[in-house]
Amino acid sequence: MSSEKLSETELIKRLFLPLARNYKGALNLGDDAALIPDHPGLDTVITTDCLVEGVHFLSTDPPAAVAARALRSNLSDLAAMGACPHVYTMAISIPGHIDIRWLEAFAAQLDTDQRAYNIHLAGGDTVATPGPLNISITAMGHVPTGSATARSGASPGDGIYVTGTIGDAALGLKLLTGQLSLSDDVARDFLIDRFHFPTARIETGITLREQATACADISDGLLRDLGNICTVSGCHAVIDWELVPLSPATKAVYENDNAYMELILSGGDDYELVLTGPEDLHGPFTRIGTMNSTENAKSPTTVRKNGEVLAYMKSSGYEHGW
Amino acid sequence: MSSEKLSETELIKRLFLPLARNYKGALNLGDDAALIPDHPGLDTVITTDCLVEGVHFLSTDPPAAVAARALRSNLSDLAAMGACPHVYTMAISIPGHIDIRWLEAFAAQLDTDQRAYNIHLAGGDTVATPGPLNISITAMGHVPTGSATARSGASPGDGIYVTGTIGDAALGLKLLTGQLSLSDDVARDFLIDRFHFPTARIETGITLREQATACADISDGLLRDLGNICTVSGCHAVIDWELVPLSPATKAVYENDNAYMELILSGGDDYELVLTGPEDLHGPFTRIGTMNSTENAKSPTTVRKNGEVLAYMKSSGYEHGW
Repeated sequence: MSSEKLSETELIKRLFLPLARNYKGALNLGDDAALIPDHPGLDTVITTDCLVEGVHFLSTDPPAAVAARALRSNLSDLAAMGACPHVYTMAISIPGHIDIRWLEAFAAQLDTDQRAYNIHLAGGDTVATPGPLNISITAMGHVPTGSATARSGASPGDGIYVTGTIGDAALGLKLLTGQLSLSDDVARDFLIDRFHFPTARIETGITLREQATACADISDGLLRDLGNICTVSGCHAVIDWELVPLSPATKAVYENDNAYMELILSGGDDYELVLTGPEDLHGPFTRIGTMNSTENAKSPTTVRKNGEVLAYMKSSGYEHGW
Repeated sequence: MSSEKLSETELIKRLFLPLARNYKGALNLGDDAALIPDHPGLDTVITTDCLVEGVHFLSTDPPAAVAARALRSNLSDLAAMGACPHVYTMAISIPGHIDIRWLEAFAAQLDTDQRAYNIHLAGGDTVATPGPLNISITAMGHVPTGSATARSGASPGDGIYVTGTIGDAALGLKLLTGQLSLSDDVARDFLIDRFHFPTARIETGITLREQATACADISDGLLRDLGNICTVSGCHAVIDWELVPLSPATKAVYENDNAYMELILSGGDDYELVLTGPEDLHGPFTRIGTMNSTENAKSPTTVRKNGEVLAYMKSSGYEHGW
């Protein structure tokens, strides 16, 4: 551990100012706020996600993974609405056990992600906390006026699709917490990597503006996020387990113990997109079911396995109570 | 304490959805992100401030005061740049000791402030934390394209002005922590109220777009925030203690013990505006000094008392180290 101590001003100058250098409106982080110039013809999409140490990530997670998940969980929200990333602000509450080397690795990954996703740090707030590390990012993106994809546009008859593969991140987290073990190191590393470094589906989201009737990102689990589309669209989703795309690693875990089906479908942290659209939609996604009317539906989503309707499956995903 | 328990979804629906009802782009908090329609001819000003329980406010502070400070510290940043408030997002990390009644009072004050400042909740994130209450608000406002007031425009010869009175909030905090006592209950209540319920100077900020050469809000103390204007503008500020506007309550504390001058000038949390402009600027603010060149200046700001230059005064304001 480094014993170097930096003031708030020095910390911002050393770690965060370089992340704002390429965005003129950040005003070199020297003002009270950032300035985003008028972008005629574009609507702004804005989203806020908060990650708390010990709740949304593990204290032992590498700083690069924490940075990637903090930023990409927001980018994934932009992707769901079809927005191009533009700028973000970050409020970070830093406890004493987080040292400068940890923060340097964290900032380095933000820099990498900024280049990969073409987004810039525009401002933020750096404060001390006696509690866990708390990272709150607000990301803004743009869509041509009136073209954002919402959750509310699905209709009965629409096909249901997902990008990528489902369930990997939830299994990765189980591996990290020791609740699951795998002898296959390649599979193990793959699943953990899917938890640590999710991919925000920006390009696909942009393509879908013209094609999807509804879209959401899968942060709280496929069944819950698809369920949210159903609730606001007034539809009932029927999906077939056999159609849900699984990675080889996840497939192997499931084949070894079928009980993992529930975690795969409701575990969360996938940051893939779930969308609805015409039955014959083609693109980098997989058809998993069909939207029906809500008539006689007992829950927002129904899962079938080998054509048989499964009994009610916990679909609430990750939820805290107060 | 209430024993009622709510899920995250229920909490958002009951407390935060009503705060978003009047903003169509909030999409009833039912989407992944909010949608801010194109506002042709307007630049967007965006700011993020984070408040941590036990760091930026006391656990014993009333929920209404916490809400007011969380939102108004951001509104004050908008005011400094001359922006009209538009929308905000809020990431709130809630510990177990904060109950539903506390949160209801918190949300009620946000509602009051939304009406007073004409701003709307557009989205956010509600999460659990094992640590202190952590509130991060990102506020957005609008200015006519190119008309935002920055910190960097001050020139030698400019007058230096402040709104309201200085030092009240810092003394209010001393009263709350028992480091200062006052027999005058009216003065005591006034100073605490200035800490709990600062006024964001939105109207004055809008007027100043055309008049001020530079502006900042006083969050970290007059000397530090004025010093930041000096640093980015390349000027040296000379202010006269006798000109600094004090409330009767603060004046009485100072007259009883002159050592409070330093706290008054550097204590922070005023959320007044400090600005520079022509020597004969008139408005709801008070002239406190003049901008000079940086030649022979040993620090960004110099304070004179009865015409005599005071020895170096701690002007760093509130700053943490890591």
